[in-house]
Amino acid sequence: MYKNAEIIAIGNELITGDVIDTNSALIAKSLLALGIETSIHTSVGDDESQIISLLSTALKRSELIFITGGLGPTDDDITAKVVAKCLNRDFVLKEEIWEHIKKLLGNTGREIYPFNKKQAYIPKGAKYFLNYSGTAPCILLEEGKKRIFLLPGVPSEVSYFIDKEIKHYLAELNNSKIKIKKIKLSGISEAKVNEVIKDIVDKNPTGIAFLPKSSELVIKITAKAKTENEALQIVDETTQEVVYRLKNYVFGYDDDSIEYLLKDLLTENNLTIAVAESCTGGYISKLLTDVPGSSKYISTNVVTYSNKAKMNLLKVSQNTLEKHGAVSEQTAEEMAIGIKNLSKCDIGLSITGIAGPDGGSPLKPVGLVYVGITNGKYSKTEKFLFPEKLPRTEIRTRAAYKALQVLRSFILEMTN
Amino acid sequence: MYKNAEIIAIGNELITGDVIDTNSALIAKSLLALGIETSIHTSVGDDESQIISLLSTALKRSELIFITGGLGPTDDDITAKVVAKCLNRDFVLKEEIWEHIKKLLGNTGREIYPFNKKQAYIPKGAKYFLNYSGTAPCILLEEGKKRIFLLPGVPSEVSYFIDKEIKHYLAELNNSKIKIKKIKLSGISEAKVNEVIKDIVDKNPTGIAFLPKSSELVIKITAKAKTENEALQIVDETTQEVVYRLKNYVFGYDDDSIEYLLKDLLTENNLTIAVAESCTGGYISKLLTDVPGSSKYISTNVVTYSNKAKMNLLKVSQNTLEKHGAVSEQTAEEMAIGIKNLSKCDIGLSITGIAGPDGGSPLKPVGLVYVGITNGKYSKTEKFLFPEKLPRTEIRTRAAYKALQVLRSFILEMTN
Repeated sequence: MYKNAEIIAIGNELITGDVIDTNSALIAKSLLALGIETSIHTSVGDDESQIISLLSTALKRSELIFITGGLGPTDDDITAKVVAKCLNRDFVLKEEIWEHIKKLLGNTGREIYPFNKKQAYIPKGAKYFLNYSGTAPCILLEEGKKRIFLLPGVPSEVSYFIDKEIKHYLAELNNSKIKIKKIKLSGISEAKVNEVIKDIVDKNPTGIAFLPKSSELVIKITAKAKTENEALQIVDETTQEVVYRLKNYVFGYDDDSIEYLLKDLLTENNLTIAVAESCTGGYISKLLTDVPGSSKYISTNVVTYSNKAKMNLLKVSQNTLEKHGAVSEQTAEEMAIGIKNLSKCDIGLSITGIAGPDGGSPLKPVGLVYVGITNGKYSKTEKFLFPEKLPRTEIRTRAAYKALQVLRSFILEMTN
Repeated sequence: MYKNAEIIAIGNELITGDVIDTNSALIAKSLLALGIETSIHTSVGDDESQIISLLSTALKRSELIFITGGLGPTDDDITAKVVAKCLNRDFVLKEEIWEHIKKLLGNTGREIYPFNKKQAYIPKGAKYFLNYSGTAPCILLEEGKKRIFLLPGVPSEVSYFIDKEIKHYLAELNNSKIKIKKIKLSGISEAKVNEVIKDIVDKNPTGIAFLPKSSELVIKITAKAKTENEALQIVDETTQEVVYRLKNYVFGYDDDSIEYLLKDLLTENNLTIAVAESCTGGYISKLLTDVPGSSKYISTNVVTYSNKAKMNLLKVSQNTLEKHGAVSEQTAEEMAIGIKNLSKCDIGLSITGIAGPDGGSPLKPVGLVYVGITNGKYSKTEKFLFPEKLPRTEIRTRAAYKALQVLRSFILEMTN
């Protein structure tokens, strides 16, 4: 039973902050789903002595070691060679890997350079998995009972190897006895949630965590037990109790995202939707269409940034704009009706607000946002006020997700 | 002269992978701009013994220690208390911080709970900076010659403290003798760049790094020298040589982003732009409007996901759609002309393609994308083929950035 892992991310670009390490989180998450806990993530530069010292320490304290980065074709990438040295292994060419790299580069019309061959060298005795998403293979070293995985640094390639190879390899090593449930909430603060479920948290101090994001608040419930059934029972009972107390704020579970929940809601009810955006400038449309198959319920969205565009495309009246302004309940409502009519869909959603940093006034400060929604028979608007000091991107993100929550509540009201 | 730092990020949510640590990169980047190098980033959970062991090690090897996370009001957040214990200091209430927190919560209409008071406790003798963006203060400990900063875990708050307080504090401690220049390229692979400038890289092995991203390739040139002028000279000479060899691919420097470069190009030339998107579903519009002040050159963008929307809003002809399909050079061109006419702007940009995972065919595979552009007098289209195996989000990201590059080249051609 392998149950503790550590992750080492290598690259000067990580240490300087030029690139954010998303791989460690991806690996840790995937491991946890298999019942393997990670205790420490470390990032260092492409530096031989630092890599050797870190790997030596890791071999003393962890059963599974995941090293990501530094497998590229250029000279600054030294991970595989240094790991071979640290483990006293030769560094050898694998013809199969080299043939695969040449074929892959040829197939995508890229040139083959002599230095591409570097990626076909691995520590002697290592296993490897070929890469169909990039050129560097994933290298697996069995060092006594320890297992060391060398992964590329490109996130999509790490994701590829985890899904296609490593998950299956580890599943054979272990049987999971950890169960996790995430409850996703919107419209309530972390402090308020903590107050409402404090007794549950106190009873279960390590098993409940809060993960606040711009778009949602996640309560994560973790249970460990001797058997899988036991762990499952603990998670289920705790989840039920939490959901019972916070049911008005719960919008999903586990990997549910509001975009995907909306897909289900819209397709189940055979509804189509169109969005007219001002302050979010296309962000809501982008989020909705991140979902594969969203073309089934989306045909037309518009970004009407100027008053003229609001009048021409959405038929917002000049009188409304002059009397109440572009950022107003009335404009939001007329935009929602306008996009519904323009797109001939079932639900029209609109947003108008001030994302900043300029354009605010004492009466209409930066952070003021109105969301409008209509199904033709019934329309409503909601007002939001985000803290003025937040950066523009954060205000836009929060506003876009709030609009999606308004859409979800509206469909639930419509269909219940 | 303080010149070496390390960063410790604390939080169970980091170790489990539920949250990606963006703070370490942000801190490292800000430090480097001040001439301070970071050698190691470590993340651990909210665990007393791990925090104490890590801080003890850090105090031996680093002059500046930045600890982020674990300053929240809830019981799982233990950083400040554990640091006090590790340094043998009492943990004391600061009335000024508590008053500030109460005022801040009151001002934004939030409730004040007894446990909010926890955030007003700091290690005895510590300095602190009040938080106007959230509730946890930034705590500064002077431990002999070492400096320890405790920062909240919320990225916007970290950014706030770095900009408003820490930069100024560190600037007084040090004078920077490191100079950095970034050259931003598009339309060329890392391997090709490496070939073209290999001799420069070999001459300067630690000073040149490649940072490939979905949207661009960055060459980062770093120079250290005894004096600032000397460092500047090295960076300038290397930059000139690199740019001379790769000038056709260079689109910007340092923190230039294509969105901001487009703002300058459009406003300097007094041009307006409108975008019609299919496969990117609003992402291009979102990127363009991420820039404050973009309302000066953007009034209307549309997402026409269905054929009907392309015909109704953009006047793409039924004949074109039937004969060539929605993903074709012809449709891209008609969409560009259509959005130009609809919005009455100077330049119409369009994109149509297959983002996957479904919808591909042998003739038109997933990853096929056409970008169209017109200024009314002159139109052109460009075809791109992204690897079919890439995830939908990656194809959409790359496609959106390629379209922005097409827009930039087009404006440069138009105006030169």
